[in-house]
Amino acid sequence: MSGSYYLVSEEQHNALVRAAYSHRGFDGSEAEAAARFSAYAARHGIRTHNAIKALHLDHLFGSGAGGCVPGAKIEKRAGRFGAVEVWNANRKLGQATAYAALDAAIALADRYGVGIVCVDNAFHYLWGGGYVMDAAQRGYIAYTNCTAALAEVVPFGGKTPKLGTNPHSWGFPTQDAVGFPIVVDWATSVVAMGRVQQFAREGKSLPPNAAVDREGNPTTDPNAAVALLPFGAHKGYGLSLINELTAAYTGGSIPTIRSRWDQRPEEKHTPCFYFQVIHPEAMSSGDFAMGRNQKENVEAVIRDILKDGNSNCILPGQIEAEAAKQSDRCGGLLFTDAEIDAFNAIARECGQPEWNKHALSRAE
Amino acid sequence: MSGSYYLVSEEQHNALVRAAYSHRGFDGSEAEAAARFSAYAARHGIRTHNAIKALHLDHLFGSGAGGCVPGAKIEKRAGRFGAVEVWNANRKLGQATAYAALDAAIALADRYGVGIVCVDNAFHYLWGGGYVMDAAQRGYIAYTNCTAALAEVVPFGGKTPKLGTNPHSWGFPTQDAVGFPIVVDWATSVVAMGRVQQFAREGKSLPPNAAVDREGNPTTDPNAAVALLPFGAHKGYGLSLINELTAAYTGGSIPTIRSRWDQRPEEKHTPCFYFQVIHPEAMSSGDFAMGRNQKENVEAVIRDILKDGNSNCILPGQIEAEAAKQSDRCGGLLFTDAEIDAFNAIARECGQPEWNKHALSRAE
Repeated sequence: MSGSYYLVSEEQHNALVRAAYSHRGFDGSEAEAAARFSAYAARHGIRTHNAIKALHLDHLFGSGAGGCVPGAKIEKRAGRFGAVEVWNANRKLGQATAYAALDAAIALADRYGVGIVCVDNAFHYLWGGGYVMDAAQRGYIAYTNCTAALAEVVPFGGKTPKLGTNPHSWGFPTQDAVGFPIVVDWATSVVAMGRVQQFAREGKSLPPNAAVDREGNPTTDPNAAVALLPFGAHKGYGLSLINELTAAYTGGSIPTIRSRWDQRPEEKHTPCFYFQVIHPEAMSSGDFAMGRNQKENVEAVIRDILKDGNSNCILPGQIEAEAAKQSDRCGGLLFTDAEIDAFNAIARECGQPEWNKHALSRAE
Repeated sequence: MSGSYYLVSEEQHNALVRAAYSHRGFDGSEAEAAARFSAYAARHGIRTHNAIKALHLDHLFGSGAGGCVPGAKIEKRAGRFGAVEVWNANRKLGQATAYAALDAAIALADRYGVGIVCVDNAFHYLWGGGYVMDAAQRGYIAYTNCTAALAEVVPFGGKTPKLGTNPHSWGFPTQDAVGFPIVVDWATSVVAMGRVQQFAREGKSLPPNAAVDREGNPTTDPNAAVALLPFGAHKGYGLSLINELTAAYTGGSIPTIRSRWDQRPEEKHTPCFYFQVIHPEAMSSGDFAMGRNQKENVEAVIRDILKDGNSNCILPGQIEAEAAKQSDRCGGLLFTDAEIDAFNAIARECGQPEWNKHALSRAE
């Protein structure tokens, strides 16, 4: 009964998450998608975007605020282009929408080599890396971006937050080559606003050029920080702008009123998703050096990068893969003491039995 | 006869560049593509990737070294996927290959909504931003990446250069909204190796975390720098890895022997290109707030980002657009004194008349 984490079975976790979503009015398939995705996040050690965060976001911006509509039906816009679909999610739960969009993009990629699904009137899909990781584990090269719920990031050279933290996520089916999919996945701000709040609580300084104060000047004081800066100066700014433009071409409106349902009711307040899947066979010249096949060629490239003093380099997605291995070794999902408390608050909200810490196994 | 720049007409410039490429054995359409693209770069103020650089690269890595084959014919691999083509460029001139691949990706996007052309056995295409800018000016959303000629960049957490400077370039057809296409375009290293050499000449220090010394430790001394670091730590590393993986799925081999034609003759030494074009109509939900159309919606988003203290922010592609305006105002291409000398060296190489500085107009 020692160890840093409590072990919760996926069944136990999913039953509670389903109940919590059902209690908020979501239908069975939505609750199932939410449970499945948050279990996937927890299994991969994603502590910032697990069920606790998902339900908190739903409360702040989702079914608790008008940004998400339980039981909403997705409408697919008929277009003249075969390999690209545009969906109106009608504010359906993000995880259910994202899983469906990913499946549709995969079906398009099977047929055309590449498939794109643009989603308008979306609601937060939690963790973009999870969808492209899932696609990669199914053998596809996948990419997603979305517009974040709030405009918290100051454009490079500016003073006022006008961009979302706007993440990008790429997944590659490298599991046969290196044991896990390579997943490049991050926000375009240096840090998240949650990290600023954590640093304020802990009395720590922010890294330089991560945040600005009320006057728009860079600050390392988390208590003075009111907005974030993009990583890599103009480069991260450009990457964040890509999400805003992609969304704007699809149907998203001005960033500063996103999720602000109390402002300008005549406007659109929803984020957008962009999903893209490529069938690896479609990209293959069939001509790989040294008689290698495609998989062996990808492996040779990765192995070369990690040679000659680079063996300590971590491949993107490796930390998540190691967390998943640890979860599987332990036989369930690993949560901290504070996380179990948060789950028990969720249980009380939806009238489910709390998890008894004394009855749960512990693990390192 | 004053001003910082010499004015050279596009006709005069193109005649010399065509002659230089013809002299090196390239055919008429290759020489024309090279001239057209380097004029486009010069017109947009791209001093680092104009005809001088193109011919220098061709000498170092191209027709002068085995990496580029004048008159090579592109072979298109027949595949079962409609929206993705894979080409074997057989080391054809990069500019001619890239223009053709862009045209093909546009034709696919017209039909399927999205089109991808992966190019194996490519040779340096000079400036990725130029191709996506061209596509954007024709009304399309475009993206390209490639593997850079040499492995000069150390993976995050490593010691040894194993990645190219591997640029990414995105173009959006925003000219109707803001007067020019937004073009997000940069290498994944903090600085280019050319910049390190320039700083060494000028006795300046490098920015922190831009380069490493022989032991793999970060240095700001340009004379001690032997390799580069990715921008944004693990984020730029991930972005650079994307190009290596994309190339590896297509047919590119291990990064460290790229362009090293003297090493391991049984291996592949060529970079790869990836081109992707999306038809903006294919992405549209048709549902834009406040009765806006797609173009007006994109404009509203950009205008919002640049409001409220952000009017000094520069949109990606704006500097290049202003340079193009200046070139057009002056009625030609603007080159420095040192650049005219370099062009005259090119003229001597291919037996063409030199440009007479006294006869050229000057401009600011």
